[in-house]
Amino acid sequence: MEDPYEDALAELMINYHELNGSIIDELTEEPSPLEFMRYVARNTPFVVRGAALDWEATKTWTVDYLKTILGDDPVNIAVTPAGNADAPTPYTHSDGTTSLVFAKPHEEEQPFSVFLDYLINQEKQQQQQDTPSEVRYAQTQNDNLRHEYSLLYPQVPRTIPWARVALGAHDADAVNLWIGGTRSVTALHRDNYENVYVQIQGQKHFVLLPPACAAAVNEVELRPGRYRRRGRERGGNGDGMEKRNEEELKLELELELEDGPSVPFAIWDPDKPDVNATKYSHLARPMRVTLNPGDMLYLPCMWYHKVSQSSSPEGVCIAVNYWYDMEFSGALYPLTSFVRTVASKIK
Amino acid sequence: MEDPYEDALAELMINYHELNGSIIDELTEEPSPLEFMRYVARNTPFVVRGAALDWEATKTWTVDYLKTILGDDPVNIAVTPAGNADAPTPYTHSDGTTSLVFAKPHEEEQPFSVFLDYLINQEKQQQQQDTPSEVRYAQTQNDNLRHEYSLLYPQVPRTIPWARVALGAHDADAVNLWIGGTRSVTALHRDNYENVYVQIQGQKHFVLLPPACAAAVNEVELRPGRYRRRGRERGGNGDGMEKRNEEELKLELELELEDGPSVPFAIWDPDKPDVNATKYSHLARPMRVTLNPGDMLYLPCMWYHKVSQSSSPEGVCIAVNYWYDMEFSGALYPLTSFVRTVASKIK
Repeated sequence: MEDPYEDALAELMINYHELNGSIIDELTEEPSPLEFMRYVARNTPFVVRGAALDWEATKTWTVDYLKTILGDDPVNIAVTPAGNADAPTPYTHSDGTTSLVFAKPHEEEQPFSVFLDYLINQEKQQQQQDTPSEVRYAQTQNDNLRHEYSLLYPQVPRTIPWARVALGAHDADAVNLWIGGTRSVTALHRDNYENVYVQIQGQKHFVLLPPACAAAVNEVELRPGRYRRRGRERGGNGDGMEKRNEEELKLELELELEDGPSVPFAIWDPDKPDVNATKYSHLARPMRVTLNPGDMLYLPCMWYHKVSQSSSPEGVCIAVNYWYDMEFSGALYPLTSFVRTVASKIK
Repeated sequence: MEDPYEDALAELMINYHELNGSIIDELTEEPSPLEFMRYVARNTPFVVRGAALDWEATKTWTVDYLKTILGDDPVNIAVTPAGNADAPTPYTHSDGTTSLVFAKPHEEEQPFSVFLDYLINQEKQQQQQDTPSEVRYAQTQNDNLRHEYSLLYPQVPRTIPWARVALGAHDADAVNLWIGGTRSVTALHRDNYENVYVQIQGQKHFVLLPPACAAAVNEVELRPGRYRRRGRERGGNGDGMEKRNEEELKLELELELEDGPSVPFAIWDPDKPDVNATKYSHLARPMRVTLNPGDMLYLPCMWYHKVSQSSSPEGVCIAVNYWYDMEFSGALYPLTSFVRTVASKIK
């Protein structure tokens, strides 16, 4: 029996794309608070080319400079075998069956300089051969630029003035630093934040989908899992940072199921449109934008985004983002929740 | 068989009301463009008490003044038997069955002074007895304050500055004058405009429902109908305004079916919640606000509104409204269309 509500979801996506297109607006200068608020009202992204070219960070954050400032300070690193932190990942159960789980990275502290050297060396080796080695990413998303990396915070603006004023915020809810390499990919997901994303070194490649396309992304409940170092159980003395060497750390990661509530997560990848697709996925028209150093992206709340990256000539990809609280009152949040609910029931 | 999507619509309404409440925001002064834009982004109404108390119109538009300015100028008047212009109205077919039709008013030109005297006399009689007489309302909604009533336009601001600036409009799309009495009621409906509504004389009583409550209002396709004066067919010479007298005009209205496309229209009335209700109507929490002279209402685009009125001591109710183009791109319009589509399919 055909379900009449299918058509409503298809109509929504067609309607949305007809009214909005799928080319991102490019601004030549930063918006005023009012101009920004019009984008917030439309829940529509834009990019401002070169807006952060004059930031101290953009001008000074070379590998040498970062090492000088942070040296051997311990930093939290997400470690995965293939750059798949917080991503739907196949897990093989003891009975031989396989299912997707939400794979969280192994997290450990490393001296900043060790982490950075690892990244840079990996990028160099990458160019020669496809070395199977673990992928490291500084991506804590816990306001780390004002805490773990607070020595670098003075080199970026405390806040994005037009966003703070428009949204009536006292300050950003979080300011995050992201340092990684070519192999890290952030899987398609959504955040309940208004997001201003700023590229410092290297490039980020965004694939964006509006909340109206919820039926395309195949959001399902995934069991949580986490990568662990096998070495820990075996050796028992591998916890001291100093005692490990790079050789020991390689290829030691094992995905383990975790207890805890399941995670609703998109399992469709716009770059592999035939895998895990829903009957609506073909109607999505993903918006693509690459950020170069100094570029700034307004990523509206609740937009699905997948992010991959290219390294700078030095071998790193560095970005900063500002999260501002989104508006839960009003119409947009309940309406997008409605679309997700209908999409999940249709499936 | 119970339909699982019912729950999604119910969840949407409950969710919306939990996040938004149903008490209108009251501002003590007009907002800045940015403050207004935050309301537009939330698609949330507000009232500014006394904002138009210093308008020339609010201070000068007495019955005598209006007669002095407009005199016997012909004006377009909507005429109905019971104040039900553009309202779902029972129609009895030739086979004796009855169905609701979308009843448009009879429209005719009258000298302004004749129209105003009729209104005032009716209000006076109304206080003594429930005289059965036709209801007249100047409500053309076709930018009439800049055309038909252009002599009065200089007494109101050309535009609402904070709305014009916020919305990036050159000017209002329409500025409308409304002159009527106690018996006229505007049935629950929605407009695809951002609306700033200003009370000049008397009171308006608004009942408001957000687009998220579309499943409550029982929107159905109604055949169009229009009131006609019976006298026209009979006499054949009743078209000259001068030749008619008040006696002849009374009780001559007959509702006739019209050809043309059906009109999608809400048939639920929040003031008669048990009549024409859907299974979702009881979840709606209508927002109610009364405008006194000088009060200003921001009525966001696509909100359902029912409007009734009370006369000034002189016996008239006068209001002005400014329509600004709404934003069709972005998320809100396609998402609210989706809710309406799902609601119509559920029924």
